Amino acid sequence: MKSIEKSVAELSALVGGQVVGDGDRKVRRVASLNTASEGDIAYVEDEKLFPAATASQASCLITPERASVDVPCRIEVKNPKLGFALIAEVLHPPKARPAITHPSAIIAETAKLAADVFIGAFVCVGENSIVGSHTQIRAGAKIGDGVKVGNDCVIHPNVFLEDGVSVGNRVILHAGVVIGADGFGYVRGDMGYHKFPQIGTVVIEDDVELGANTTIDRGALGRTRIGKGTKLDNMVHVGHNCDIGERVVIAAQTGISGSVTIEDDCVIGGQVGFGDHIRVQSGAVIGSKAGVLPGKIVRPGVWWGIPIQPLDEYKRLNAHLGRVPQMREELRLLQERVRLLEDQLLAGDE
Amino acid sequence: MKSIEKSVAELSALVGGQVVGDGDRKVRRVASLNTASEGDIAYVEDEKLFPAATASQASCLITPERASVDVPCRIEVKNPKLGFALIAEVLHPPKARPAITHPSAIIAETAKLAADVFIGAFVCVGENSIVGSHTQIRAGAKIGDGVKVGNDCVIHPNVFLEDGVSVGNRVILHAGVVIGADGFGYVRGDMGYHKFPQIGTVVIEDDVELGANTTIDRGALGRTRIGKGTKLDNMVHVGHNCDIGERVVIAAQTGISGSVTIEDDCVIGGQVGFGDHIRVQSGAVIGSKAGVLPGKIVRPGVWWGIPIQPLDEYKRLNAHLGRVPQMREELRLLQERVRLLEDQLLAGDE
Amino acid sequence: MKSIEKSVAELSALVGGQVVGDGDRKVRRVASLNTASEGDIAYVEDEKLFPAATASQASCLITPERASVDVPCRIEVKNPKLGFALIAEVLHPPKARPAITHPSAIIAETAKLAADVFIGAFVCVGENSIVGSHTQIRAGAKIGDGVKVGNDCVIHPNVFLEDGVSVGNRVILHAGVVIGADGFGYVRGDMGYHKFPQIGTVVIEDDVELGANTTIDRGALGRTRIGKGTKLDNMVHVGHNCDIGERVVIAAQTGISGSVTIEDDCVIGGQVGFGDHIRVQSGAVIGSKAGVLPGKIVRPGVWWGIPIQPLDEYKRLNAHLGRVPQMREELRLLQERVRLLEDQLLAGDE
Repeated sequence: MKSIEKSVAELSALVGGQVVGDGDRKVRRVASLNTASEGDIAYVEDEKLFPAATASQASCLITPERASVDVPCRIEVKNPKLGFALIAEVLHPPKARPAITHPSAIIAETAKLAADVFIGAFVCVGENSIVGSHTQIRAGAKIGDGVKVGNDCVIHPNVFLEDGVSVGNRVILHAGVVIGADGFGYVRGDMGYHKFPQIGTVVIEDDVELGANTTIDRGALGRTRIGKGTKLDNMVHVGHNCDIGERVVIAAQTGISGSVTIEDDCVIGGQVGFGDHIRVQSGAVIGSKAGVLPGKIVRPGVWWGIPIQPLDEYKRLNAHLGRVPQMREELRLLQERVRLLEDQLLAGDE
Repeated sequence: MKSIEKSVAELSALVGGQVVGDGDRKVRRVASLNTASEGDIAYVEDEKLFPAATASQASCLITPERASVDVPCRIEVKNPKLGFALIAEVLHPPKARPAITHPSAIIAETAKLAADVFIGAFVCVGENSIVGSHTQIRAGAKIGDGVKVGNDCVIHPNVFLEDGVSVGNRVILHAGVVIGADGFGYVRGDMGYHKFPQIGTVVIEDDVELGANTTIDRGALGRTRIGKGTKLDNMVHVGHNCDIGERVVIAAQTGISGSVTIEDDCVIGGQVGFGDHIRVQSGAVIGSKAGVLPGKIVRPGVWWGIPIQPLDEYKRLNAHLGRVPQMREELRLLQERVRLLEDQLLAGDE
Repeated sequence: MKSIEKSVAELSALVGGQVVGDGDRKVRRVASLNTASEGDIAYVEDEKLFPAATASQASCLITPERASVDVPCRIEVKNPKLGFALIAEVLHPPKARPAITHPSAIIAETAKLAADVFIGAFVCVGENSIVGSHTQIRAGAKIGDGVKVGNDCVIHPNVFLEDGVSVGNRVILHAGVVIGADGFGYVRGDMGYHKFPQIGTVVIEDDVELGANTTIDRGALGRTRIGKGTKLDNMVHVGHNCDIGERVVIAAQTGISGSVTIEDDCVIGGQVGFGDHIRVQSGAVIGSKAGVLPGKIVRPGVWWGIPIQPLDEYKRLNAHLGRVPQMREELRLLQERVRLLEDQLLAGDE
């Protein structure tokens, strides 16, 4: 793990913080409170952890403003976890790789590679494809024909980009990602299934990160899009013609059928399933393992369950359902009391 | 995207249609109603879209018979979407690749490759494996020993076929597919788990398509089979000794435990989970996210839920469950009324 | 499939069994009862299968002690399935591969490979990485820098091990496995998401087996661990900083969020979802498709459902819920009876 030494004062300036204590201290690594030692910087947010923070061996802590954490050196910021992430970006930049093309790589003559790209062993880059400045294409990645990859990307080993797909700048594609495979569309004929044409494309915008073994299918006739700044975890499936907006977060193993739109700034849990032609409106949050029926419009708010309901309703209904055993008993007692009443009335009539 | 020019009359003949208007028009591409322009052919099925169809810029439309869509050129067929798929097969054939073996590929001396195969860069083909006529094995795919791949297949990049598996004709395996890895079977001993033998094989029949990163495990002692014309979406898991019939469709991320039989013409949604030793009878439809308990026999019909129930029962029960809050209120009111009656009777007795 | 010939007496000794019949018979293969023929050994446990066992064409059967299975040759053991697995280990050892490095492989000069390793075509091994004795690294696998792989491992094709990860002895990694990709952690800032540092590592202990396309993310700051003897099926996702204990079994497509601890000897079904910071205590069993809420402590026992409940409670509640339609009807009848009583009392008052 490469690391870089910075003074606390420099780092504090970087995150708009306030040094409390010795700003000349040097730090080289981020670490957690418990494991930090000399040269490390850690962060604390939760007051309950302030005693642990005070006991930390870190050279510097990032803390909330006016936090009662008595250590020789700390940086006060509004959002310590964000400050920690920003400082980690400086101390632990992505691994640099030299501007070389491995001699084993097969680069089409018509491909255009920026001068400072890194191309690993056993990489293929197809006809008329373009790779931007400072991008790394690691060992075994396969880039089809007519693909565009922007600047400062990291394409990890064994990724596959099918013909014609487009990838923006600062995109990270983890190992085993497949972009632009055919979508899943068939029409049933007398003899079986015929492929509905899958001749569209995929557009991955800037600052997207896709987890290992995630798959993004090409559009059937149009395009599939992953918007700027959106982050997908491992093994997420995005079907043909989906339109995923900007700054969307989708956790692992979620599956999205064709023609689903997820607007900007949504947060989607893991193992969620989406039927086709759903629209998730900006700002909606969908809990893990939820199921969304085809065609549904999901309004902003927090959603849960199979099929999804507003979280409050889900909780209320579940609380009611948990009382059903007791209701059965109450119902049985009431039946008994009514029978007694009926007997009494009958006896009174006699 | 390669395309081929055809006259409307030629295409109509191909799909057994009836030209209404100018059959000499030329089309080169399929497109959607909204985005179609000169040279494109689109289709419309739903009457609600007939106004949009009338306004479409497509050179030709495929419509239902006697459809009131007033355009200069259209083809009437019984099933417009099927006609569209068939025409797309002609206008947009799979990408042709030349009959060459990339010099970087490692082909065992005992392997038998048809003369016109395409073998991409960094491909391996093992001892005694056979690759049929006109098949494409793209960059980075790895074919083990004793593997048989039929004619006219497309094996996309980074696919892995383990020793001994058999693949039919016209099979499409998308990137990252793994066929023939060991099934998941262990026996617990005193010291931990011992592998149950996983020495069977996998048979993929003709016209199968498997989505990106899908995995088909080898049989433990027998074989795992994917029947003719069956289509699996991305990241489907098929366990050891499964027998998947013909013309079965399985959507993304469904997982099938060992020794499951799915008979012909079933339709399985996404993210469905199957326990082991299930039999799904021909024609059954199982909704997305369903769960099927081990050993179950699933009869024809539409099934839903965890564990699965007939869709009608599932809906009816869920409607009842949604009334539980109201039932609790009704029960409370009834308890009050009974208490009143009891009080009255008690008073009357005095 | 390689096989080795052994006498029944030798195999019986190996599993601590008792030969009943002709111990000199030779067997070369394991097989199932139905398909076994001359030279095969099969096993039977369930008394219902004893007639089928008696009719089996196997040269030898493995049976429970004092089983009434009348065949010319059998081995009695306490646990026939375990005996079968142990015998299969002898008759069908993992495929041997020669101690060669394929000339196409790219091995860093600082890497240290044991003399008897097998390195397939198009493999990369990075700087300062170590590969132990008798380990096989198959075609297309990519090993980063500073990686340690132990002895007697099989790394199947297209596996990727990121920089710094550590793999024990006798580990099997099936095709498409990705170990050490960045975990999924971000901090939201004004402009979008910033990566929480993902600079930890992964430790895979001895005797682990990971199914095809499974992904194990590196720790954010610490490490992710898969304990000794643990077995994961295909497409399992293990998030950053998880600690999976020894002899844990996890079926396909289960997803585990960050910082989850699963203690020794747990059994987890397929498609289970874990929120973050869960602790599953040693010996717990979680049924397929279950969902576990973040932060939960799962005690020993059998758990089921979304969210998980003890299996008994789950079954009891579900039985109650299945009676809700009948409860609604009973409630309606009771309301009618109470109305009648009210009418009678009212009439009596007049």
